Amino acid sequence: MVWDAWGVPEGRTTLPEPIRGLLTQVFGVSGELAARRDEGDVALRPLVLPEDRRAGLTDIVGAGHLTTAAGERLRHAGGKSTLDLLRRRDRSPQDAPDAVVYPADHEQVAAVLAYCSAHGIAVVPFGGGTSVVGGVDPVRGRFDTVIALDLRRLDALLDCDPVSATATFGAGVTGPRAEELLAAHGFALGHFPQSFEFASIGGFAATRSSGQASAGYGRFDDMVQRIRVATPTGTVDLGRAPASAAGPDLRELFVGSEGALGVLTEVTVRVHPVPETTAHTAWSFPDFATGAAALRSVVQTGAAPTVLRLSDEAETGLNLARAGDIGGAPVAGCLAVTTFEGTAAHVAARSAEAAELLRAAGGTELGPGPARDWEHGRFAAPYLRDALLDAGVLCETLETATTWSRLSELKTKVTAALTETLTAQGTPALVMCHISHTYPTGASLYFTVVAKLLDEPIAQWRAAKQAAGDAIATVGATITHHHAVGADHRAWLPGEIGEVGIRILRAVKREIDPAGILNPGTLLP
Amino acid sequence: MVWDAWGVPEGRTTLPEPIRGLLTQVFGVSGELAARRDEGDVALRPLVLPEDRRAGLTDIVGAGHLTTAAGERLRHAGGKSTLDLLRRRDRSPQDAPDAVVYPADHEQVAAVLAYCSAHGIAVVPFGGGTSVVGGVDPVRGRFDTVIALDLRRLDALLDCDPVSATATFGAGVTGPRAEELLAAHGFALGHFPQSFEFASIGGFAATRSSGQASAGYGRFDDMVQRIRVATPTGTVDLGRAPASAAGPDLRELFVGSEGALGVLTEVTVRVHPVPETTAHTAWSFPDFATGAAALRSVVQTGAAPTVLRLSDEAETGLNLARAGDIGGAPVAGCLAVTTFEGTAAHVAARSAEAAELLRAAGGTELGPGPARDWEHGRFAAPYLRDALLDAGVLCETLETATTWSRLSELKTKVTAALTETLTAQGTPALVMCHISHTYPTGASLYFTVVAKLLDEPIAQWRAAKQAAGDAIATVGATITHHHAVGADHRAWLPGEIGEVGIRILRAVKREIDPAGILNPGTLLP
Repeated sequence: MVWDAWGVPEGRTTLPEPIRGLLTQVFGVSGELAARRDEGDVALRPLVLPEDRRAGLTDIVGAGHLTTAAGERLRHAGGKSTLDLLRRRDRSPQDAPDAVVYPADHEQVAAVLAYCSAHGIAVVPFGGGTSVVGGVDPVRGRFDTVIALDLRRLDALLDCDPVSATATFGAGVTGPRAEELLAAHGFALGHFPQSFEFASIGGFAATRSSGQASAGYGRFDDMVQRIRVATPTGTVDLGRAPASAAGPDLRELFVGSEGALGVLTEVTVRVHPVPETTAHTAWSFPDFATGAAALRSVVQTGAAPTVLRLSDEAETGLNLARAGDIGGAPVAGCLAVTTFEGTAAHVAARSAEAAELLRAAGGTELGPGPARDWEHGRFAAPYLRDALLDAGVLCETLETATTWSRLSELKTKVTAALTETLTAQGTPALVMCHISHTYPTGASLYFTVVAKLLDEPIAQWRAAKQAAGDAIATVGATITHHHAVGADHRAWLPGEIGEVGIRILRAVKREIDPAGILNPGTLLP
Repeated sequence: MVWDAWGVPEGRTTLPEPIRGLLTQVFGVSGELAARRDEGDVALRPLVLPEDRRAGLTDIVGAGHLTTAAGERLRHAGGKSTLDLLRRRDRSPQDAPDAVVYPADHEQVAAVLAYCSAHGIAVVPFGGGTSVVGGVDPVRGRFDTVIALDLRRLDALLDCDPVSATATFGAGVTGPRAEELLAAHGFALGHFPQSFEFASIGGFAATRSSGQASAGYGRFDDMVQRIRVATPTGTVDLGRAPASAAGPDLRELFVGSEGALGVLTEVTVRVHPVPETTAHTAWSFPDFATGAAALRSVVQTGAAPTVLRLSDEAETGLNLARAGDIGGAPVAGCLAVTTFEGTAAHVAARSAEAAELLRAAGGTELGPGPARDWEHGRFAAPYLRDALLDAGVLCETLETATTWSRLSELKTKVTAALTETLTAQGTPALVMCHISHTYPTGASLYFTVVAKLLDEPIAQWRAAKQAAGDAIATVGATITHHHAVGADHRAWLPGEIGEVGIRILRAVKREIDPAGILNPGTLLP
């Protein structure tokens, strides 16, 4: 990815005319994009990598697989949250890892960790670098040196078991590459978070990612069958069967451990045959509460859609769910999208059952068009976010989840917290929301916030995020449904898992990472 | 439950005539049942409970809620495995907890744990007492005194949220009571392990129980949303949403912790509306491999039955899946049972899809009869096991799980290990097997073993179990799919989770149970 924005250079987008009009009207900005800096002009924090350490690490990964080149350091300087990008735009020297190390396999990862543990070097495991919560910040902790451990060379499909419908990937395989490798065997993974194009299998597992087809294929943590983890003090292989009663499920300690407890090097996941059929249907609901109740009836009845999502009135009105039409003619009500995948008979039965439930709950069928539009544009939003930033407009997202009975309260309180904090700072704020992950007992809420960038944009967003996080905690919802803890949510983790929970995580970390080298900036407060 | 066998006295059964004939023919025993001992005649290990300790515990739970009566001690002397019952039949003094303590609520549980931690008293959390792996043995560890912490007074439905379809139970609520309490709200839990009639909500969670309707409603660990856990050093509440990315999922440390890390006092579970319709259909397959492939196609396609099981040729031949006909006219092939629950439309669509898949895979539909028979008799097997024991015949079960591609190898090797070990000791052995829990990536195998009781029956079964467990480990399957680790599977846990896994569990235990009072006989080697 480029150093100062999302994705690849060719993905950079300009702002459509209707959006520029909106920006002028609401925020008083022109929509003209500021120029970006050349990465060669960026000053970096001075390098701290003694020659013997460079030699020791090179001995493990081989010449050519450790670099201290400024460009590589800069591209490993953190993730892709708006805060990250604002920091990247700062003119003072950029923080960055002192070296980027590219191990070839599990054994090299384990050797790097043992070496860094013995020699006091902090290690930030690095997959696709798509964190939006500060999960790959180059934090040194109490050490002088920090390296990024880039896993891109662990890029193989190690095994595909067509009978059991499982596949084992190296941690560095990206979303598109995983689908490509599986397709050669007639299988698919079906994990499509917005980071899909760049994020990696290891990163999906380490952050408990959830994809847009979670209704059908589950969250990534549901897909995980087996993991191989390197820690500074040994390797562990976990997961011998689809399910087990052999004590606590320690996979669930490493899944979601965000590189702070170990490095996931191989992940075996549940896959499925490439679907025979995909059916798209969009629906309109008069309001969000009606739409949410409709989604609830579908998931609680077990109608089993593959994708099930609902935009609120604000998001629907701005057409944010349909990339091609964003900012176009306003749309009333709330747009819902469903897709169904599988055999033809399976899709026919499921979509008929769901349609009946959605109609009974007050939905109006819109046909496949808006659902296909949504699918077509679903990975484009981060590029739009970057263009808004270039135009002086802050656009950031945050997400949470709770039970169905608390969903309305959660939406109201988070919306109010964001709106009030930003307004009080002196900018109008647009707050939009959708449900994109549903469960029989509850759902996620995903908020998109647009406001004018003020003079101190980092402090501006921190205040809004603090208020939103506090509102989430007050309702008793989770501080993050699929973005992970990283640096940005650490302060709320004690509220989420309690003092005993924090003590447990610290005890586990002390045991397997006694030097504390693993990702010091993330997860644990 | 009675002290020396499964269940209630009125459940005690005699052996049907066809079985007595079979026993005479195969094992040379008459099928006459030996008399059982009166519990008043049983000698117990001397009591070790200093007066100040009795007073300290009574201060917490209140007078009348601590007992040292011999009958109560005996009924808390362990679980209900065949090994347990063989030990109970031994004439030497029975080991038993020194006292049974009945706390009223979470706070009393927490206070008992803190007290016992401060005063060096081992604590065995006790739910239904149905463990078949030695999970509630009165083991003292390095302490003089051990108490059973019986949770039966935590017997309330604390909350039912009809919108989110969740219910919060006290840990001591039994299976039938949970269904009864939920039915008053129009909901059901749908968790039916063979221990259903006696086991408790807390026990289901602490052991990762899986019920016969797991295909439809999931394992108990899938159902768990929120848990409240008392530890000797604090309380922890975990689970704020249906799903979360807030770091490692610590619920999964306590679910399956078998009382060794904490005491689950309140459990919030996913529930569902009482089904409109239940459809039963039985199927016959020419052989186990064909049947297993058929089940696989159903679960991998997502046809979503509620119950899905398959008996092998031996189990089908003995009619073991149909309690009323056990030992009757032999039946050829392999019997499969399906049930579908839900709305009428849902059941119709699902059962049609499944029927098509099962037929295409070589199944012959037998109608609802055998499926209803199976359901009717499904909790009776343990009583039959006890009658066999009374007649001098060992009948024990063990279970495991693996991926679909390894299922056949696993079945062959475990069957051989059991048969060869028992035959070598001088008894014929009948080994039967069924699949009762299916997943897209694999399935469980449940073995029932019948052999003549030899002179040293405990050593006899231990040798067979050792061989079976080693065979399971060799194949790379899990040592237990739903019976938990307890005492009986501890030796295989390091093979299952590795040395790093064991270190992690020990580190967690040191942190939250520093005195090591919690269930010293279980889980950790």
